[in-house]
Amino acid sequence: MCELFAMSSRYPADVRFSLEEFSRHGGLAGHHKDGWGIAWYEGGDVRLVKEPTAASDSACLGFIQDHPFRSTTVVGHIRRATQGRLTLANTQPLTRELGGQVHVFAHNGDLDGAGLRRSFHLGAYHPVGETDSEYAFCALLHRLSRLWREPKQAPPVEMRLALVSEFAAGLRALGPANFLYADGDALFVHGHKRTHADGIRPPGLHLLCRACTAESGAFTAEGLSIEPAGIAQEVVIAASVPLTAGESWRALADGEIVVVRGGRIVQPGESHHE
Amino acid sequence: MCELFAMSSRYPADVRFSLEEFSRHGGLAGHHKDGWGIAWYEGGDVRLVKEPTAASDSACLGFIQDHPFRSTTVVGHIRRATQGRLTLANTQPLTRELGGQVHVFAHNGDLDGAGLRRSFHLGAYHPVGETDSEYAFCALLHRLSRLWREPKQAPPVEMRLALVSEFAAGLRALGPANFLYADGDALFVHGHKRTHADGIRPPGLHLLCRACTAESGAFTAEGLSIEPAGIAQEVVIAASVPLTAGESWRALADGEIVVVRGGRIVQPGESHHE
Repeated sequence: MCELFAMSSRYPADVRFSLEEFSRHGGLAGHHKDGWGIAWYEGGDVRLVKEPTAASDSACLGFIQDHPFRSTTVVGHIRRATQGRLTLANTQPLTRELGGQVHVFAHNGDLDGAGLRRSFHLGAYHPVGETDSEYAFCALLHRLSRLWREPKQAPPVEMRLALVSEFAAGLRALGPANFLYADGDALFVHGHKRTHADGIRPPGLHLLCRACTAESGAFTAEGLSIEPAGIAQEVVIAASVPLTAGESWRALADGEIVVVRGGRIVQPGESHHE
Repeated sequence: MCELFAMSSRYPADVRFSLEEFSRHGGLAGHHKDGWGIAWYEGGDVRLVKEPTAASDSACLGFIQDHPFRSTTVVGHIRRATQGRLTLANTQPLTRELGGQVHVFAHNGDLDGAGLRRSFHLGAYHPVGETDSEYAFCALLHRLSRLWREPKQAPPVEMRLALVSEFAAGLRALGPANFLYADGDALFVHGHKRTHADGIRPPGLHLLCRACTAESGAFTAEGLSIEPAGIAQEVVIAASVPLTAGESWRALADGEIVVVRGGRIVQPGESHHE
């Protein structure tokens, strides 16, 4: 299965060490040799770096680790191909513009392609690659385009959550549907099923909330370092599997969606079991 | 003024040395310290690397030069800001999806923003940044969306050229409008006016056509090396100013548009003087 990673923070944070851990999952420690990508918000836009090759061998990922960036929203993906060739277009995260904002999507799971095409329409959004994940992203944007009527004005988060929840429920009927979706204002984290030792079952995503001040110094204590420490930083991290030991990662329930903004959970997560 | 660069080739080509020359124009030899970007097609998608900082100081551009890529279509831009802040969103090239293809745009010139908003509508395409160049790209895509009805099927090049020509004529009425536009099938090169020692006048772009076989070895003779040599390679290069000496760079006429595909000019260039 693919690996997902996301970070939302109150102040721009340096996610260098988590990328290292993430990279190990992508080839050295894990079995995800088919591609990797990282997208992060910067100056109203998104930087996207991705390659259809193993993260562990990547000179490009090494360069990012040597020249760390700061951002308040990061989405990462490591691919084990189940659909589509090993091309750049089939590598995630995926980005598109809607309402004058760059939207980012990363999906983990194997969806029923025919069912996807029956259940979801795309409007003006056409996939560039061949994956079920990109088809799903196009379908999500097509649905959300109803809401994003005024450029640069994010619709109320409750309205966006309602559409994302409806979309996620439709997706879950077609296969494992863990996804991360950022729209320039909020980050939506949707947990579902994933391949475990005893079969395909929840959890598909784990969540970690951290708060830190200069006094606590908690940010550098573990393998996952989110800089800068020394300010009243707040961070939410989502990952397929817990990236650190000794911290209270919480498994997302089947169909749970959490909305995060500026390092804080703004929608407490509702369960939509089927 | 900004610097534009584009390359179209028959076989994937390595443009390392021209990037070096281009980088020198962006800070060392020239006065373009406000940002740089390179977009290249790969596996049906586009890799885009850009930064709102000087190209000559960029560790990232250094990394690209040390790890050269091969592509059949490359578009580059070095920015001297005339409109918009020094942000990633205001840095070119710009990319968007239309008809299941990634489209790339880079513009050099300073357009009348109010006139632009009066003359051009955007439809569903909203700028992420604040530049006249991005507004123009959105307007171009909105016009072209009439033609791109079937995903992955480029409309006849004559129809696309007619729309691009009409768009370019409208743009020229609003200020210097040199631009490069690639749609995943063809590269459109539009020359207009640019700041020279004796004022703002044509040419704004220069064109170089190269053909090479193993025997001629012409590709490595000059400062601008397009690999691989040794095959029947054909290349067209467009740049604001000639990047090499001793080669027959041709200045584009005022309003001339050239359409390039696979390293060959497919539309001979029509003049649209006003």
